[in-house]
Amino acid sequence: MRVTVSRKAHFNAAHRLYRKDWSNEQNDTIFGKCNNANFHGHNYELTVSVTGGIDPETGYVIDTKILSDLIKVHIEDAFDHKNLNLDVPEFAELNPTAENIVVVIWQKLRAHIHADKDLEVTLYETPRNFVTFKGE
Amino acid sequence: MRVTVSRKAHFNAAHRLYRKDWSNEQNDTIFGKCNNANFHGHNYELTVSVTGGIDPETGYVIDTKILSDLIKVHIEDAFDHKNLNLDVPEFAELNPTAENIVVVIWQKLRAHIHADKDLEVTLYETPRNFVTFKGE
Amino acid sequence: MRVTVSRKAHFNAAHRLYRKDWSNEQNDTIFGKCNNANFHGHNYELTVSVTGGIDPETGYVIDTKILSDLIKVHIEDAFDHKNLNLDVPEFAELNPTAENIVVVIWQKLRAHIHADKDLEVTLYETPRNFVTFKGE
Amino acid sequence: MRVTVSRKAHFNAAHRLYRKDWSNEQNDTIFGKCNNANFHGHNYELTVSVTGGIDPETGYVIDTKILSDLIKVHIEDAFDHKNLNLDVPEFAELNPTAENIVVVIWQKLRAHIHADKDLEVTLYETPRNFVTFKGE
Amino acid sequence: MRVTVSRKAHFNAAHRLYRKDWSNEQNDTIFGKCNNANFHGHNYELTVSVTGGIDPETGYVIDTKILSDLIKVHIEDAFDHKNLNLDVPEFAELNPTAENIVVVIWQKLRAHIHADKDLEVTLYETPRNFVTFKGE
Amino acid sequence: MRVTVSRKAHFNAAHRLYRKDWSNEQNDTIFGKCNNANFHGHNYELTVSVTGGIDPETGYVIDTKILSDLIKVHIEDAFDHKNLNLDVPEFAELNPTAENIVVVIWQKLRAHIHADKDLEVTLYETPRNFVTFKGE
Repeated sequence: MRVTVSRKAHFNAAHRLYRKDWSNEQNDTIFGKCNNANFHGHNYELTVSVTGGIDPETGYVIDTKILSDLIKVHIEDAFDHKNLNLDVPEFAELNPTAENIVVVIWQKLRAHIHADKDLEVTLYETPRNFVTFKGE
Repeated sequence: MRVTVSRKAHFNAAHRLYRKDWSNEQNDTIFGKCNNANFHGHNYELTVSVTGGIDPETGYVIDTKILSDLIKVHIEDAFDHKNLNLDVPEFAELNPTAENIVVVIWQKLRAHIHADKDLEVTLYETPRNFVTFKGE
Repeated sequence: MRVTVSRKAHFNAAHRLYRKDWSNEQNDTIFGKCNNANFHGHNYELTVSVTGGIDPETGYVIDTKILSDLIKVHIEDAFDHKNLNLDVPEFAELNPTAENIVVVIWQKLRAHIHADKDLEVTLYETPRNFVTFKGE
Repeated sequence: MRVTVSRKAHFNAAHRLYRKDWSNEQNDTIFGKCNNANFHGHNYELTVSVTGGIDPETGYVIDTKILSDLIKVHIEDAFDHKNLNLDVPEFAELNPTAENIVVVIWQKLRAHIHADKDLEVTLYETPRNFVTFKGE
Repeated sequence: MRVTVSRKAHFNAAHRLYRKDWSNEQNDTIFGKCNNANFHGHNYELTVSVTGGIDPETGYVIDTKILSDLIKVHIEDAFDHKNLNLDVPEFAELNPTAENIVVVIWQKLRAHIHADKDLEVTLYETPRNFVTFKGE
Repeated sequence: MRVTVSRKAHFNAAHRLYRKDWSNEQNDTIFGKCNNANFHGHNYELTVSVTGGIDPETGYVIDTKILSDLIKVHIEDAFDHKNLNLDVPEFAELNPTAENIVVVIWQKLRAHIHADKDLEVTLYETPRNFVTFKGE
């Protein structure tokens, strides 16, 4: 019997969507107002979901306190109140679209979740736009 | 690496649940107060989810501006502030239950999403009742 | 010490915004797509707030069970799954704008709330549009 | 064509996380403040999802009125305003973690949903922590 | 120019509504299933609102970090994962209705907010029931 | 009879809290991580509330389409996908705290709302922090 345990978290950040190797016209055409050279920002809302068997001793798949601490150390401390393009090494050469951010978050957390558990991450960039990655 | 990109939208509409080929008693038995001959209505809230590979050029699976425009043209303009039974051709002979509406929405959007991407639609009829169709 | 006790409720209804004594052109100019002759509809979400002193015996301003029953009998039973224009007597000659609906709801409930308590009603017509009336 | 129909419900309950066969120190180490001997509590929010083919007669996978009644009789009446450890037989010897509660709810409902339909249950213990079980 | 700054917080707790000086029948009549002798519980969601002039130096009415810390120390640490009747001294002789809880929270915070600022507290006992106290 | 009509809107923006005339140490002490020189950002969610008498002709206090257009032209077009410090003239010399932003929004809208109507603006900087200004 496999149960999914989900925990919500959040961070605020600035970002800009563009490619350094494109002209500004090309960036404007593809990324529109998201290419503002002075940046814009979001309240990113995060759901991290871990699926696995229930430990018969504790009744837990994963202690949500442990899951919450993992998210704090590896995601919130790294991304919160940051400029994703300038302050976060993973996006030095990677365009911080929601799709790329959710994959980076998944990869950072995957290393800390036991291999017999599945991991899925959903990231809300706004209350109306969100992305999901399950490592497939 | 396949990521799901989701976009929320909404429309308001009137509808009535009933079958023309049933007696009013039969319609009342099955559809209860949803068979009010004068119609009732809902704020339908929609989530459209597209799953595909990340374009390495743009970092997008699909530009949410493009997805949002598709939803506007094919769903909102067709359904918003309408009577589903009387104003929307797809429901002239099809009972507009939430299940049938979500399938119609999926079919209308499927034609405009590239075949190598998966499509899933969730439709909230009320904040407490919702349906999901993924074309399977 | 006066405390406000609030209770949420909801109903679904169809309606149409128009005046019988105006031409269709005039109605279209003022009410736009809300003037669809076949009606459209909403999930109306309601918050009813009663302000008064705390009864030292019970610790209640008003028992939320009693408040909830008042809303059910006087509002939900009268409005839910109805066509406001055709099925609800209060709107036979009154345009069912959100403003007019919230005043009608307030008046219907006011008669059943003790005079030494204040009453305020908020009505969400959509998750983005809402109105409030406090009887002033 | 299989569509998923989901219905939300809720109940309030007290509980305590601990094992009778562990020392209080061991319980404190694993369950922390959730091991308060005087109990704490939650507003549990529930989503019950049933997946199946659309009945061509009614346009329903399952009538949400029937689904809502099943949840009321088998879950809300059994759990609402209860102490899960002391008042609910299923947890007399089973630690009422969110994971164990969602499996019990799924099992209680599974008996009443037709075998050709799939069942999934999501349980929010808080607005930030939730679990999902689909019987696999 | 006076601006209101609001901060949300939350705590989980068990409680029981009853009066020790009433018979069990009397308690059942008034408090119904809230009088379960084994307790039930809630996720209490809190909004604390402070109104005052904007400090021209900082642009703040009150630093939300300071407000958040006040709520943590005086409310969350005192109430979270507690049994309000048994573990919280303020309710040893006071029935922990939502009305009484919100007044106690207001009183505990009032002592720590500068006298030239107004304080209002809203407490959600469930997502559908909430109370507000502004000290009047 | 005065009714309040409220409309929600939103914009995304980057900002930084600091005073040019303070040392970086002083800015760090007061504004903490909000003083990141590379900026951070938010999804600002806005509620604009207009209170006035109901026009007996239309049943409206204010047409929400007109209100929505005012918010779009004067607030969303000016603030959305912008860096508040660098791109918005009102904050060239004014620290863009939530308090200062809500006052600026109120002042920009006040000029376009008839003088016999009251105006109140609520601005969510995050889902947990918000501010309200009513021009008093």
